[in-house]
Amino acid sequence: MTREMKVGVIGLGHMGSGIAASLMRAGFDVTVYNRTREKAAPLLAKGAHLAATVRDACGGDAVITMLADDNAVNEVVSGNDGILASLPKDAIHMSSSTISVALSADLTERHARAGRRFIAAPVFGRPDVAAAGKLFVVAAGSSDTIAAVQPLLNAIGQKTFVISETPSAANLVKLSGNFLIATVIESLGEAMALIDKGGIDRRMYVDLLTSTLFGAPVYKTYGSLVAERRFEPAGFPALLARKDIRLALAAGEDLCVPLPIASLLRDRFLALAARGGDHLDWSAISELAALDSASTRPQKQDGSIAA
Amino acid sequence: MTREMKVGVIGLGHMGSGIAASLMRAGFDVTVYNRTREKAAPLLAKGAHLAATVRDACGGDAVITMLADDNAVNEVVSGNDGILASLPKDAIHMSSSTISVALSADLTERHARAGRRFIAAPVFGRPDVAAAGKLFVVAAGSSDTIAAVQPLLNAIGQKTFVISETPSAANLVKLSGNFLIATVIESLGEAMALIDKGGIDRRMYVDLLTSTLFGAPVYKTYGSLVAERRFEPAGFPALLARKDIRLALAAGEDLCVPLPIASLLRDRFLALAARGGDHLDWSAISELAALDSASTRPQKQDGSIAA
Amino acid sequence: MTREMKVGVIGLGHMGSGIAASLMRAGFDVTVYNRTREKAAPLLAKGAHLAATVRDACGGDAVITMLADDNAVNEVVSGNDGILASLPKDAIHMSSSTISVALSADLTERHARAGRRFIAAPVFGRPDVAAAGKLFVVAAGSSDTIAAVQPLLNAIGQKTFVISETPSAANLVKLSGNFLIATVIESLGEAMALIDKGGIDRRMYVDLLTSTLFGAPVYKTYGSLVAERRFEPAGFPALLARKDIRLALAAGEDLCVPLPIASLLRDRFLALAARGGDHLDWSAISELAALDSASTRPQKQDGSIAA
Amino acid sequence: MTREMKVGVIGLGHMGSGIAASLMRAGFDVTVYNRTREKAAPLLAKGAHLAATVRDACGGDAVITMLADDNAVNEVVSGNDGILASLPKDAIHMSSSTISVALSADLTERHARAGRRFIAAPVFGRPDVAAAGKLFVVAAGSSDTIAAVQPLLNAIGQKTFVISETPSAANLVKLSGNFLIATVIESLGEAMALIDKGGIDRRMYVDLLTSTLFGAPVYKTYGSLVAERRFEPAGFPALLARKDIRLALAAGEDLCVPLPIASLLRDRFLALAARGGDHLDWSAISELAALDSASTRPQKQDGSIAA
Repeated sequence: MTREMKVGVIGLGHMGSGIAASLMRAGFDVTVYNRTREKAAPLLAKGAHLAATVRDACGGDAVITMLADDNAVNEVVSGNDGILASLPKDAIHMSSSTISVALSADLTERHARAGRRFIAAPVFGRPDVAAAGKLFVVAAGSSDTIAAVQPLLNAIGQKTFVISETPSAANLVKLSGNFLIATVIESLGEAMALIDKGGIDRRMYVDLLTSTLFGAPVYKTYGSLVAERRFEPAGFPALLARKDIRLALAAGEDLCVPLPIASLLRDRFLALAARGGDHLDWSAISELAALDSASTRPQKQDGSIAA
Repeated sequence: MTREMKVGVIGLGHMGSGIAASLMRAGFDVTVYNRTREKAAPLLAKGAHLAATVRDACGGDAVITMLADDNAVNEVVSGNDGILASLPKDAIHMSSSTISVALSADLTERHARAGRRFIAAPVFGRPDVAAAGKLFVVAAGSSDTIAAVQPLLNAIGQKTFVISETPSAANLVKLSGNFLIATVIESLGEAMALIDKGGIDRRMYVDLLTSTLFGAPVYKTYGSLVAERRFEPAGFPALLARKDIRLALAAGEDLCVPLPIASLLRDRFLALAARGGDHLDWSAISELAALDSASTRPQKQDGSIAA
Repeated sequence: MTREMKVGVIGLGHMGSGIAASLMRAGFDVTVYNRTREKAAPLLAKGAHLAATVRDACGGDAVITMLADDNAVNEVVSGNDGILASLPKDAIHMSSSTISVALSADLTERHARAGRRFIAAPVFGRPDVAAAGKLFVVAAGSSDTIAAVQPLLNAIGQKTFVISETPSAANLVKLSGNFLIATVIESLGEAMALIDKGGIDRRMYVDLLTSTLFGAPVYKTYGSLVAERRFEPAGFPALLARKDIRLALAAGEDLCVPLPIASLLRDRFLALAARGGDHLDWSAISELAALDSASTRPQKQDGSIAA
Repeated sequence: MTREMKVGVIGLGHMGSGIAASLMRAGFDVTVYNRTREKAAPLLAKGAHLAATVRDACGGDAVITMLADDNAVNEVVSGNDGILASLPKDAIHMSSSTISVALSADLTERHARAGRRFIAAPVFGRPDVAAAGKLFVVAAGSSDTIAAVQPLLNAIGQKTFVISETPSAANLVKLSGNFLIATVIESLGEAMALIDKGGIDRRMYVDLLTSTLFGAPVYKTYGSLVAERRFEPAGFPALLARKDIRLALAAGEDLCVPLPIASLLRDRFLALAARGGDHLDWSAISELAALDSASTRPQKQDGSIAA
């Protein structure tokens, strides 16, 4: 395959749009599909083709799905005009959505039976990183399939980690990664409730942490959001994070692995949802530790998480 | 004060010995004291003076304490030959031990009443970092006192963060920092139990994490220890980490701040202790997630943590 | 309806067999069905009719299902020879299995659409209680339907609580009840690990509790099992309890209700399963607190839960 | 000793006053002491003698202490006019306060050294039960000492459980008992948040529970309080319950016994305290589950626990 690969992109949320833009910048022939068409406009302006149906997005060498959840992915895959029925023999479905390990295993089997190729290639990075083509990609699938889509992977990410021949392994790693990030958020929320009530400035505290042992992007990004309580606009909405923690727990359940911190996170995301905060950035769970310690005035406007 | 400052160092464990060595390398006149004298030998060989008693270590401009816990610090401070009774008027006691917020507040008050100066200057860094004079120091106390010991701080650390006029604030930050590190260890333990049982290599997983969002020293150091289950020799023994989590919880209790992850960590360190693992590196709590998921063969030798 | 009601019983595990026996003792005309036929023998000996298929069990006024989980119930309900297709117009399907709130809502809708009547009537009580016809029944559904099956309810239980017109409400109450029982087990496990290590006899401790504030059947039954570590034979296997906690958490998730103790229980049942204890009585989760405190020698025989 | 035993009662809160009243009703010669004298009035009216000092309450055969916490007990025991210095040789100090295992062990040793006799006899029961002389008493100490105070025990309680020759064992049992009760409260809070949001009436739910498997006083008492959210006046204030959970955790720590539910309870009581609820009945922690699920309108008056 060469630069002239034809690729469909299904799902034009913040992440999918960024991925499509990166592919076009790299010279690929890109066809885009989204249930609500308006989201396609900026990409069409840059030269993307519009697919009116899922089937229309499946005419090339590969199709990438970047959708919100298991149901959305399952829906575009199945049915008479779904990906499985529409993709040419030997074409590749690359699933970049954060989906369950179970669905990924199921899709692997269904594609194999239908004579289509499937890889899982979930990504790490927020929307701005996707737009810049600087995502980290965790890919799993048969090595020749991954080799075939390597040009696409190079276009959307700064680095690809190939971790297994079994696609669902990539989904497990992705879910575990989101679990680790959510843990960082929760621990920063607890630590900041503590030092805040102890009279120490939250911003100075984050500076101290990130200049020393915690000098990683994850502490810088979420440390600032938590310290400044800046939960809107959401880079990654709590609703989706809640789903990801559920999927991590479900994977743990299938493998008989207790995950006590993930259980705590689940309860935090539910408490946030009950307070009407599903639309906030997932870093907003940090506010629950602040509420429980009455360490700060709860927010009271718009997306208030106060009781 | 100049480079010729005379300074005592009380407590010659791995951390105290490294600090004393750094001070000597920087040209200070150093007198050392340790309850069991043998630990002083390497420093004496490099030119340190030996103090036979705590009092003997208190004849200079400043004395630094680097001891295991509240009791040890309290003991060297109090009594007829303790620091308070021995230190010259206006000399400085710099407490670098990880002690409770409550003891730090108490020491502040007692030193003020006695006309001695007190600052808290706990540090981040493992023994090799202490030996290299590359610690991160979190200092709190009156600004003129901190200015007076700045040459000492420069000698032992690569950077000093001055965070408050109230000494105990530094102890609170130190405890919160150890809480954050222990959280990283526990979350890595859970995540690795999960991906391990999902058939993914632990070392590759850590490489992936630390090459991407988790590229901080804390993930590199503990990621390797956890992946390779290398818990001996202990850089920081679980016994002391257990104490630190207890002190973080106690600080939270005094300030009415619930700390759910710290509660979980407390239970982990107790379970490790019950299994005879207090002498292992604190990263050994990660093994409990592995045990609970039966994801790997429990260690069976020496300091086995197997049930 | 009168005593001559004809009723099918689908599912002849310990609980279903007890229910069928109670119905026969009360004079009903009972037809029984079980996937593996052998379990029907004792009931046939007492005069029950054998149904060769699900359809054969659906010829009467009502059919009762008492099966292990959602999948099993869904399977006997659906398909060309399932309950929905086989039950006479206006006949009643009484679901006594512990199933999810979501499935119960779904069954309610499907029965209504098909012109069949549906009530949920889950029960509290262990196998010996079922055999004696002394169950507690929690019933929900339209009042005339409940009135119609009242003679059946009287036969199987010592008391029926009618709690709602919405069948799934009964399933929610049942799941919450199992959550409360599992909480009692876990708390007894923790308390006994504590007093045991403090040198106090476990049996004496349970006597003290149940003679005072904790004089309820739940403390008597599970207090003895926990104190004596008698986890076999299982009155209620951990595998099923694990499912019930999962369903309680799922109900909480749908309603946005965090359930921190249920999260802890989930992790306990997973840890027990990982150690090979799914077949033990659910009271065996108490052993995990004992293991974590090394308070007692782990069992090493048969259904050992030792690591 | 006979009915004419002379006994002092130190501490006239709700519990101590009830105990003193029961002793007088049984015919004992009772001298009472309380730091604030007004509380003694109702007892003096019934014929009690007033002690102006702790020493004055220690002139008889035995003295009973019923105080709020370790500090209060330690204070009346120590010093020139404390119990140890004032009690006649071989007289008995019976400690009924809920104190730490560590202090109980310490008191045992100090009394032995001073030639005084010490037993721990903590009690279960709320103020109305104390006033009626119907407490359950958990006693530990040397058997002759317990025999000597048996008439007192008979007067204050409906039943005494003698559990050990080591006094602190009784304190451990008492703390574990309060842990079990608090667990019941928390689990009812979670369950009621769940069924409430599922549309089921809380009161009916409690009736169902207590008529079936949960027919114990603890479920009846706390089930009603939780269902009706009746947290004032406090039968047992959250402040004291918070202390008891802390002491249970401290005992667990000394014995290396992790107590995950107790850790959760600790965080609940801290969250309640942070919201200003320390004066409410301890059953008010149930409101936190309601808040986290937004299952009900938070209370907004007086001792509001709303954020």
